[in-house]
Amino acid sequence: MTSIAMIEAAAQRLSGHARRTPLLSSPFLDDLAGRRVFVKAECLQHTGSFKFRGAWNAISALKPSGVVAFSSGNHAQGVALSARLQGLPAVIIMPSDAPANKIDNTRALGAEVVLYDRATEDRDAIGDRVATERGLTLIKPFDMAEVIAGQGTAGLEIAEQAAEVGVTQGRVLVPCGGGGLTSGIALALEARAPGFTVHPCEPEGFDDVARSLKAGSLQRNTRLSGSICDAIVTPQPGDLTWPVIARLCGPGQVVTEDEALRAMGLAHDRLKLVLEPGGAVALAAALFRPGSEPVIAVASGGNVDRAMMARALAQ
Amino acid sequence: MTSIAMIEAAAQRLSGHARRTPLLSSPFLDDLAGRRVFVKAECLQHTGSFKFRGAWNAISALKPSGVVAFSSGNHAQGVALSARLQGLPAVIIMPSDAPANKIDNTRALGAEVVLYDRATEDRDAIGDRVATERGLTLIKPFDMAEVIAGQGTAGLEIAEQAAEVGVTQGRVLVPCGGGGLTSGIALALEARAPGFTVHPCEPEGFDDVARSLKAGSLQRNTRLSGSICDAIVTPQPGDLTWPVIARLCGPGQVVTEDEALRAMGLAHDRLKLVLEPGGAVALAAALFRPGSEPVIAVASGGNVDRAMMARALAQ
Repeated sequence: MTSIAMIEAAAQRLSGHARRTPLLSSPFLDDLAGRRVFVKAECLQHTGSFKFRGAWNAISALKPSGVVAFSSGNHAQGVALSARLQGLPAVIIMPSDAPANKIDNTRALGAEVVLYDRATEDRDAIGDRVATERGLTLIKPFDMAEVIAGQGTAGLEIAEQAAEVGVTQGRVLVPCGGGGLTSGIALALEARAPGFTVHPCEPEGFDDVARSLKAGSLQRNTRLSGSICDAIVTPQPGDLTWPVIARLCGPGQVVTEDEALRAMGLAHDRLKLVLEPGGAVALAAALFRPGSEPVIAVASGGNVDRAMMARALAQ
Repeated sequence: MTSIAMIEAAAQRLSGHARRTPLLSSPFLDDLAGRRVFVKAECLQHTGSFKFRGAWNAISALKPSGVVAFSSGNHAQGVALSARLQGLPAVIIMPSDAPANKIDNTRALGAEVVLYDRATEDRDAIGDRVATERGLTLIKPFDMAEVIAGQGTAGLEIAEQAAEVGVTQGRVLVPCGGGGLTSGIALALEARAPGFTVHPCEPEGFDDVARSLKAGSLQRNTRLSGSICDAIVTPQPGDLTWPVIARLCGPGQVVTEDEALRAMGLAHDRLKLVLEPGGAVALAAALFRPGSEPVIAVASGGNVDRAMMARALAQ
């Protein structure tokens, strides 16, 4: 399992390679929310999301001769750029109906893209074959100790940056899909800033983690598509992430798609940040759910297409 | 005149108050421009532009009992927030036809707004009367040594951040209105990173600084309205800023409004930053003007309304 020592080691590996993203705030957002609101701007991380942290750390720690990943989104870009910067080949396995710009972006970052037909081909079988034939190591999107440790470095930074502005207790809100970022941050704060409680944030209708926390046992989403917050929709929390979340996190927070879009608009107006809907759910919870404690919202990603941003700006 | 010692003193005053904004980059922008491109993200500064630096420094250095400023834009917000954070009253004098949201924003930052009629009233007379009656100190937008010193702190950060990524020579492109930011950065880099040349950047039709540099003497703009880059349109360079620019800067770069809008779109897609048109002219020059040296573009502000951002995204 991931330990604070592994997160500290990850921070060493990331030093000089990942960005130490800023902790931002705006008096306008404080007034709107009626409390102090800080935003950890992971949309400014390399490739536009926190995923670069876990990918870089896993590749640095495992020292593979090459890597393979399944993803059509933020994890793909994080793995592709990390591999390229470390001089390693990367194969990204994507469904053939993935958006053309996501395929192009991943190729532009130096990865080889292998497409499969979702209706007729088995993704895992293709991954196994490619990994075996070419001696590649699979980098999982969240259920992998070194990936969780890499994401946890964002938590170390939050602990330091919050202390710099004199905040040592409150709530840390984290957009949560498979739980890699949430569990990594929770582990880092448990050790370095125990005055904070971590709360996973999800979109309405895809709140498997909030329901799991409430039930005290792992719950699944009934559907897996149809959310504009696609970047954080997964079937259920991971085998490694769920025990950490169950042990360390406070109740989940659930926001509507409209609230995520409104948070994107306010991040545009007041923070000058571009967020994707899934990356904006924690900010939405910070702004639109009552509370009096200081709150730190992680803005986990900004890979949004222009049409969706225009939709947020039209709210 | 502003000296490097004054800029260093300004950096001390700003420490812990202004943000050390990140120097960002994207492999996609490097590929597009055919050279290394870095962006100094001053849109992430408090109040969404670099103006907070000069305002904070001038107020800290001059220790007034209260301040007054003429502005309907970024300078107004920088002065208002700096004064509020230092516990001082601020009066901002704005034309009565200024956009309502700019008036509201300035008031929300704690300033008293005094409106005047551009057709019938003399702005300077009102400013003098308010200053005298109430014992306030005028904070000018650029032609003031302590304001220039404050803006120059962005140059100290550029020198350090460029060295951290191994870049010690190339071009630094700066959006230029009255020249406070350009001259401050040029003075800082002359002392701390002399391998860089500073180039002022302006929109087509409002290129008084580029023409002044070419002519070797101060030139004026023939018109002062009608640019989407309104934040950086001034009649001519300042009495204090022009001698610095004339001595230290390389040729000015001029971009079209369409190029500024395209740069805003690319900053959205690749850097996850919101820029205003005037704040995007240096990035536009970095991306769309040929060159092989590394280039650092200052993204000076992000205070753009949603309609203008939607226009940039539709390019």
